[in-house]
Amino acid sequence: MTFDLVAHDPQTKARAGVVHTAHGAIETPIFMPVGTAGTVKAVQQRDLTHDVQAQIILGNTYHLYLRPGLDVLRAAGGLHKFNGWDRPILTDSGGYQVYSLSGTRKIKEEGVKFRSHIDGSQHLFSPEGVMDIQRTIGADIMMAFDECTPWPCEYDYASRSLDMTHRWLKRCIQRFDSTEGHYGYDQTLFPIVQGSTFKDLRIKSAEFIAEQGREGNAIGGLSVGEPAEQMYEMTELVCDILPADKPRYLMGVGTPANILENIALGVDMFDCVMPTRNARNGMLFTTQGIMNITNKKWQLNFEPIDATLGGYVSTFYSRSYVRHLFQSQEMLGPQIASIHNLSFYLWLVKQAREQIVAGTFREWKEKMVKQVMTRL
Amino acid sequence: MTFDLVAHDPQTKARAGVVHTAHGAIETPIFMPVGTAGTVKAVQQRDLTHDVQAQIILGNTYHLYLRPGLDVLRAAGGLHKFNGWDRPILTDSGGYQVYSLSGTRKIKEEGVKFRSHIDGSQHLFSPEGVMDIQRTIGADIMMAFDECTPWPCEYDYASRSLDMTHRWLKRCIQRFDSTEGHYGYDQTLFPIVQGSTFKDLRIKSAEFIAEQGREGNAIGGLSVGEPAEQMYEMTELVCDILPADKPRYLMGVGTPANILENIALGVDMFDCVMPTRNARNGMLFTTQGIMNITNKKWQLNFEPIDATLGGYVSTFYSRSYVRHLFQSQEMLGPQIASIHNLSFYLWLVKQAREQIVAGTFREWKEKMVKQVMTRL
Ligand SMILES: [Zn+2]
Ligand SMILES: [Zn+2]
Repeated sequence: MTFDLVAHDPQTKARAGVVHTAHGAIETPIFMPVGTAGTVKAVQQRDLTHDVQAQIILGNTYHLYLRPGLDVLRAAGGLHKFNGWDRPILTDSGGYQVYSLSGTRKIKEEGVKFRSHIDGSQHLFSPEGVMDIQRTIGADIMMAFDECTPWPCEYDYASRSLDMTHRWLKRCIQRFDSTEGHYGYDQTLFPIVQGSTFKDLRIKSAEFIAEQGREGNAIGGLSVGEPAEQMYEMTELVCDILPADKPRYLMGVGTPANILENIALGVDMFDCVMPTRNARNGMLFTTQGIMNITNKKWQLNFEPIDATLGGYVSTFYSRSYVRHLFQSQEMLGPQIASIHNLSFYLWLVKQAREQIVAGTFREWKEKMVKQVMTRL
Repeated sequence: MTFDLVAHDPQTKARAGVVHTAHGAIETPIFMPVGTAGTVKAVQQRDLTHDVQAQIILGNTYHLYLRPGLDVLRAAGGLHKFNGWDRPILTDSGGYQVYSLSGTRKIKEEGVKFRSHIDGSQHLFSPEGVMDIQRTIGADIMMAFDECTPWPCEYDYASRSLDMTHRWLKRCIQRFDSTEGHYGYDQTLFPIVQGSTFKDLRIKSAEFIAEQGREGNAIGGLSVGEPAEQMYEMTELVCDILPADKPRYLMGVGTPANILENIALGVDMFDCVMPTRNARNGMLFTTQGIMNITNKKWQLNFEPIDATLGGYVSTFYSRSYVRHLFQSQEMLGPQIASIHNLSFYLWLVKQAREQIVAGTFREWKEKMVKQVMTRL
């Protein structure tokens, strides 16, 4: 994996770049749709390419490991072959889901013992094991196994957890560097900065991560409930330490405003379930603001969802029709909303990139943050 | 609406024709996907056109009347404008759903009083009212308001019900012929033959329906639980009486085999929820037979769903992947399965038509009935 910096915004720390992977290039800043179980929920692969114009999608190691399982993924020739997505894929390390989804779990130095949320079966995720799993999944970008601390978090716990995350990282790197991809193409490993919302821990972690000299770096443990201002403070602190010539991935962020603000701080890559999860509840992000499409006010509104955004679903289906689909609990409602919201998120980062290249990002960002967060 | 007969199969009563409507032509025999609430469940309009190659879809008057309701449909300019489907639409009369879905209902000479299955509100469907509703929906083909008797049914009940259905038909025709479409294009009204599985009632009804001289005719009250042989017996009896120069629509039928057998008896139009409903449960109809895709036997089968059928979903997604989607309760599973099954149904009737035109329908039909009903 390589990273080319194309442009810097003169008034913020925003950058435009290109990440090159074995499955093609990614123009940054980029938003990555979440494809938990090898599917971006409710969106066909063709529509993800043509309508959403996604350049890279995420897979969740925890989910894929449990279902379809490694035997199926190995027999398929990896996740790309299994789900037919031939562009880049990034997998998380499974840590976050182990903490949030599985019932009983025990975190020890060795790793995390947990029970499957599906059938209660017992499993162990260790740094080495999680590297092996991601080798079998075949993601272009693999993530280090870490502990993502909850918020708020006691300083002592955050500090001890961070040290373990760093020890785990060394084990991840050791395993990653001594193994090869299974399917004939290169993979890369991103380490993750942790440290909760404690400045000194974040600085310590960012310096440790930077020292590893990997091809890209991630910031985890944010957007877990802390105020947005604290998130931005941590991001800025960390971005200033992480190497400028490597892509920076802020995990699990966020709202359209969060994304724009973090781009301004030097973040290049984002993922979040918000566009698809909120879509399934009838919340539509548009170029003009946020619509709760289930609201009665849209009942007789026959305008397209978002004429400015363009694209098939956003211009073909009316607000009235989409509201009706949600009222009637028809699957087509979430399907349309998911494609629309993801199209919006991809449009937003593409616009941001153009503004950065043009040197007009800051002014545009200030305007857009207000506009896209307006409640319609 | 007009109907051109294009070809007759020399060895069966199968015919190939073209139905011309205000929203375009329909090549018969045809299968009509069911779009209950103005949406063919889980299928985007674009995919219905390009992948499924549907030529006409159904709407359910009962559902559309309750939701989105007539005010919305009128304001939209009719159902075509509301859901963006600009090809032909047929609406049923709502009778069947009133009997099967609504809780309390009272059938009287005036019409049927019922409670909404959504909010318990009370409504009356009368022959006149149902004509007015279908005028407002704006279907190209409207159906008469009838009583669809359950099976089995006492002779006396079936006989009295049939007489009322015939009286209701006269009222439907009276209302239909004294009103006009709301949206500037022609609509047509199909009467419905009833009579349960009693030969003399079916003959009486078919003769009465034929006498009305409408542009097309329907056969109702079959595929409600009776043995297939009885269905075929009734269809043959009725088709022999209904005018040969008008399209014949067999309502709510059926399996791929049912459709092929009824085409051989002279039926031109079909609808059924089976391809979409069974799709949502993981039952796939293919050119080689029927697959329960949730079965473990497909876990490591990386062949496409149905290479012979062709089309994006049937060739892009593997059996293993679709099984995984169903195992994981991912919406994409039902989405893919729905498009696939509908594509198969439309492929089947298109093949049938080509065989009729070529004069080779009977032999092909005998082979296909066995092939498509094989359990894989
Ligand atoms: Zn998120
Ligand atoms: Zn049916």
